[in-house]
Amino acid sequence: MKELELVSIKQMPIRKVNGFSSSPVSDILSVEEPLEIRIGYGTKAARVQKSISVTMRTPGNDLELAVGFLFTEGIISSYDHVKAVHHAGLNCSSQKENIVKVELAESFVPDLMQSERNFYTTSSCGVCGKASIQSIRTVSPFCHLGKPPLTLSADVLYTLPRKLKDDQNGFAATGGIHASGLFTMEGNLVLSREDVGRHNALDKLVGMALTNYLLPLNQHMLLLSGRASFELIQKAAMAGISIVAAIGAPSSLAVDLAEEFDMTLLGFLNESRFNIYSLSERISIPEINENQNKS
Amino acid sequence: MKELELVSIKQMPIRKVNGFSSSPVSDILSVEEPLEIRIGYGTKAARVQKSISVTMRTPGNDLELAVGFLFTEGIISSYDHVKAVHHAGLNCSSQKENIVKVELAESFVPDLMQSERNFYTTSSCGVCGKASIQSIRTVSPFCHLGKPPLTLSADVLYTLPRKLKDDQNGFAATGGIHASGLFTMEGNLVLSREDVGRHNALDKLVGMALTNYLLPLNQHMLLLSGRASFELIQKAAMAGISIVAAIGAPSSLAVDLAEEFDMTLLGFLNESRFNIYSLSERISIPEINENQNKS
Repeated sequence: MKELELVSIKQMPIRKVNGFSSSPVSDILSVEEPLEIRIGYGTKAARVQKSISVTMRTPGNDLELAVGFLFTEGIISSYDHVKAVHHAGLNCSSQKENIVKVELAESFVPDLMQSERNFYTTSSCGVCGKASIQSIRTVSPFCHLGKPPLTLSADVLYTLPRKLKDDQNGFAATGGIHASGLFTMEGNLVLSREDVGRHNALDKLVGMALTNYLLPLNQHMLLLSGRASFELIQKAAMAGISIVAAIGAPSSLAVDLAEEFDMTLLGFLNESRFNIYSLSERISIPEINENQNKS
Repeated sequence: MKELELVSIKQMPIRKVNGFSSSPVSDILSVEEPLEIRIGYGTKAARVQKSISVTMRTPGNDLELAVGFLFTEGIISSYDHVKAVHHAGLNCSSQKENIVKVELAESFVPDLMQSERNFYTTSSCGVCGKASIQSIRTVSPFCHLGKPPLTLSADVLYTLPRKLKDDQNGFAATGGIHASGLFTMEGNLVLSREDVGRHNALDKLVGMALTNYLLPLNQHMLLLSGRASFELIQKAAMAGISIVAAIGAPSSLAVDLAEEFDMTLLGFLNESRFNIYSLSERISIPEINENQNKS
């Protein structure tokens, strides 16, 4: 277990009520604070600073979150586009580090309309899920890679929720934080990240992979601690992930998007069952030994 | 139970894996689709149309969602500011009704910077939770109402999660959708709304209350099916709600905001226990009859 960053949890006095008795106790909560992501771009002579987004996040891995966000939103498509990334602005009385500045390479011209176009296309067609999916297809850098011949076994899958939970220090402490976990086909946990915002947990994970030049993640599977929404599948598709499993339910548009990107999508995964929503051929289900079964 | 709107669920063929056997079945998923909220404002002679937001939502109660969003974001502060609200744009091939247009009264000038300033203040102080809370204080129309003398009994509280779930047709069908429920102090469910986005479920509920001139909701309590984040407490505060209970955990900033607004915040509520994070004096815990307890 990695050490839990102290900035990400906060101790508070609360009152615990159990049946009809109550007592004051000290409890640990997940910290939620706004993070502003700013970029600097242009030549040395004509440098421009711009605020791109403010997200409510759990402090910790802020730099990964910022570059991961820029990548999954299609504003940068490589870590080479980043010259430097650092916290900025400590002039707040609470001394919180709630601004991250990403300095882009002078040679790189970001498409700043991209973050608006990305999910939400207001075309002549109007707003619909189909338009949203099409707009993602045009920006995903790994869309051309095609369907990798991966196989993931059901007995491996059943072990993953426990492995992710065991690695979730924040959840163990607070009972209220989301996680994204990256696994190999053998079921080894490569990397996990937590956040009160599930999209932030995934951006942190993708940002970590980006800064270590590990993208695309098309040989890995992603486990989500909650439900699978369109936004999460979109971010996973941007990182080239081929298999996504969620502990919770997927939405209709998440399934549509997974199918469009040749992604295997699983839902309601626990230690003994799951549902397959798309591309089931990547999942192998070991045959049961009849005698074992009867004994 | 009210009838489940067919636009909000979708039947899909999936593969169900149980242990080491699998079978194709038909499953029901929650629909997720983008909704664009547009406003029209200004005089008849100089009418302006503007796109305010795109949110990923479950179709159904779209008009309530749109006006609820405008209210909880501080763009309108009364239903009198709304002249008409209707779906717009059916020129998409999929014939989805994914645009809602809110026509504002000609006499009303909306503060369009408000939605940006609301949660996320980038002042000289930088971005911090404190600035976020301060900025909400300035826009909440019911901030001056003060602390109402409400009392909610623990034995009433224990019955609420089941009542909300029993009313959640979407959850019963899909296992994957959030809800917001409004209750009286006697534990009667007044109103509930569902959505894949928990903020949308609450905006739908507030929008319904707004259009029926029921605001402020300071004699009611709100039950959230998931965790309590800053955003949800902010929206509840805008509607003047005095007691919020969540089935899941609150974040640190949600508790800070609840305290600032004299709101009672409860978390981890189930049929036999809960935690109190702020203003515990509104919660009464009935004394147990000693003899009953021993028998």
